Amino acid sequence: MRDVAIIGVGMTKFGQLGRVTSRELIASAAVEAMNDAGVTPKDIEANYVGILSSDFFEHQMHSAPGVPDYLGMHNTPSTRVEAACASGGLSVMHAIMAVAGGFYDTVLATGAEKMTNLPTNHVTEGLAMCADDVYELSLGITFPGAFAMVARAHEAQFGTDAEQRAAVAVKNHKNATKNPLAQYQKEITFEKAMNSIMIADPLRLFDCSPITDGAAAVVVVPWEDRHKYEGQAVKVRGFAQASETMSLHDRTDITSFNTTKIAARNAFKRAGLEPKDIDFAEVHDCFTIAEIVAIEDMGFFKKGEGGKAALNGDTAADGHLPINVSGGLKAKGHPIGATGVAQIVEVSKQLRGTAGERQLSDVEFGMTQNLGGSGSTIVCHILERGD
Amino acid sequence: MRDVAIIGVGMTKFGQLGRVTSRELIASAAVEAMNDAGVTPKDIEANYVGILSSDFFEHQMHSAPGVPDYLGMHNTPSTRVEAACASGGLSVMHAIMAVAGGFYDTVLATGAEKMTNLPTNHVTEGLAMCADDVYELSLGITFPGAFAMVARAHEAQFGTDAEQRAAVAVKNHKNATKNPLAQYQKEITFEKAMNSIMIADPLRLFDCSPITDGAAAVVVVPWEDRHKYEGQAVKVRGFAQASETMSLHDRTDITSFNTTKIAARNAFKRAGLEPKDIDFAEVHDCFTIAEIVAIEDMGFFKKGEGGKAALNGDTAADGHLPINVSGGLKAKGHPIGATGVAQIVEVSKQLRGTAGERQLSDVEFGMTQNLGGSGSTIVCHILERGD
Repeated sequence: MRDVAIIGVGMTKFGQLGRVTSRELIASAAVEAMNDAGVTPKDIEANYVGILSSDFFEHQMHSAPGVPDYLGMHNTPSTRVEAACASGGLSVMHAIMAVAGGFYDTVLATGAEKMTNLPTNHVTEGLAMCADDVYELSLGITFPGAFAMVARAHEAQFGTDAEQRAAVAVKNHKNATKNPLAQYQKEITFEKAMNSIMIADPLRLFDCSPITDGAAAVVVVPWEDRHKYEGQAVKVRGFAQASETMSLHDRTDITSFNTTKIAARNAFKRAGLEPKDIDFAEVHDCFTIAEIVAIEDMGFFKKGEGGKAALNGDTAADGHLPINVSGGLKAKGHPIGATGVAQIVEVSKQLRGTAGERQLSDVEFGMTQNLGGSGSTIVCHILERGD
Repeated sequence: MRDVAIIGVGMTKFGQLGRVTSRELIASAAVEAMNDAGVTPKDIEANYVGILSSDFFEHQMHSAPGVPDYLGMHNTPSTRVEAACASGGLSVMHAIMAVAGGFYDTVLATGAEKMTNLPTNHVTEGLAMCADDVYELSLGITFPGAFAMVARAHEAQFGTDAEQRAAVAVKNHKNATKNPLAQYQKEITFEKAMNSIMIADPLRLFDCSPITDGAAAVVVVPWEDRHKYEGQAVKVRGFAQASETMSLHDRTDITSFNTTKIAARNAFKRAGLEPKDIDFAEVHDCFTIAEIVAIEDMGFFKKGEGGKAALNGDTAADGHLPINVSGGLKAKGHPIGATGVAQIVEVSKQLRGTAGERQLSDVEFGMTQNLGGSGSTIVCHILERGD
């Protein structure tokens, strides 16, 4: 199995992008990633597309061949992978596997979603279909409801309160002010977060990530070939995926996601690293409580300490373990299929030292955690600064 | 890269299966495949799911984790791949790649669709969304219309007439009488086929595959480990995938699919084989004309000779190159995501000598061709009889 490099990255603006299809957004991000890598569409041997539901949101199934079609790279194999909000992470992971396994030398991983043109109830229904339709959605549980139960359980067991959750939102909004591609580039106050309207008790508006359009793309090549390309290489050290029951009621504990623990552990094992080696991470803060649970399950903080870490500044951009320096899903935005790819874009930029105003100093290892459903799918990646 | 074996196969009855979800169908086929291989859910290290649209047909996105959930193999990574009617072929191909690349030793590839519970117009709309929504579907083109244009062009250029198309239907219905899992197990006459109602001129009802429920599954392991299992091993010799423009109007020729030519050529190259080495094939006869085009593009018959091959018996079960001895999509049925996996199940059974009444004699190499959209995605596999 070969070592693999991320050699090119691209990402559209995240936000309300108007009259544009997801394949146009993907083409835009992909062109940027290919230009960055110094390759042309002719060089791409295979393509992966992470997208939640172009069918439900855009009336277009079979979205994968649309990408090589719009990029003029005809006949290039293109495969859609879908795992709810973890679709993008799986797109990148399958591109890495395709190169590591020796099947191809130059693979494009992309992800996108186009959602803001739809009525909110249509989007909400689409997202809710990522929970268990038979046992959850049919009883009225949408994801704000599911994560509200996680927040309630976490608060009951560890005292993780509204202030700790608000600290995550305040931090990520502050981070996003330095990300020109973020959907929201303005700070919010604790007061604003804690007094925003209730969505699903105890989660308020500012505990929730927004509805977003956007796309991201990366080019993956063998590590040994990195110097043949113009792009600055970042090394893939670890990757892993885990699945879990669809329904929350089938879990013995909902203050933690087994999938995150397993995927993180397997990614660390593959990398030969431990949580203490990681300098910063992009994690799946679809809700503030999700960031708190993630950084505990990944082994960065003890159980029950994740919320305090945001409150006391440990996870701030200038803290000892910056989390979601991009602004996270909360403020950068959450175009579902793009999110997992955008996490890789951010970690790559930080490791390259090209993250602009939000550049972290002296970072060697960065990690991602991308979540689908109520943690039913988790994908983790660990990247290392190149030479 | 390691050689890979198919070590277990399973398939539900294809047809109208009543009140059952696709994940229940997958679980049923998967249990059969695991029992056949002599493995338990605990042995499965990763799972792939080929499904067109559980969201549009069953109100359930994120269907991949539902499979390990229902099989009790919690935390096993499960990934959905979607490429319209080629979703099943990609599920198998990614399982093969995962084992060949050394990422896992025991992988389950599954595929399913549940469609017969829905009004026909809902299914038709869902399927049509696999064409280009912007340039085709919005103008009223559904797949019977798209393949009718292919049939018209093929007839104009090569004289492939209604009788040749009907010969494909008559053959595949005859083959299905010997397949107890087929949706339709009765012969049809030429007269019946040629006088059935017009669906999209010149394609009549018996030129079209039906709407079907069903699932199929295979277990994939390293070839070198095959004797550790109870299942009778079949060797994977070749596999390849190709993509093409979404819209037919972007092609220079619609009497042929470039994707089939490229995927077949690359599968032959990987296998070190030629079309003349293949003893039988399962190809994607979503419409009779599609089988004709496929066997020409795969190199089995000269351009314009595919229809005559059915008419003169060359592709019959007792002909020199049996095509769709299972009954094909036409008569075995076409539960979208299951189809590409079911092709592998049939070829494996034939190579093992366990195909019952429809067993072909003395077969060493079998091939599959699985098509998505108007040929926008093609996946081909070549399998060899085991030792």
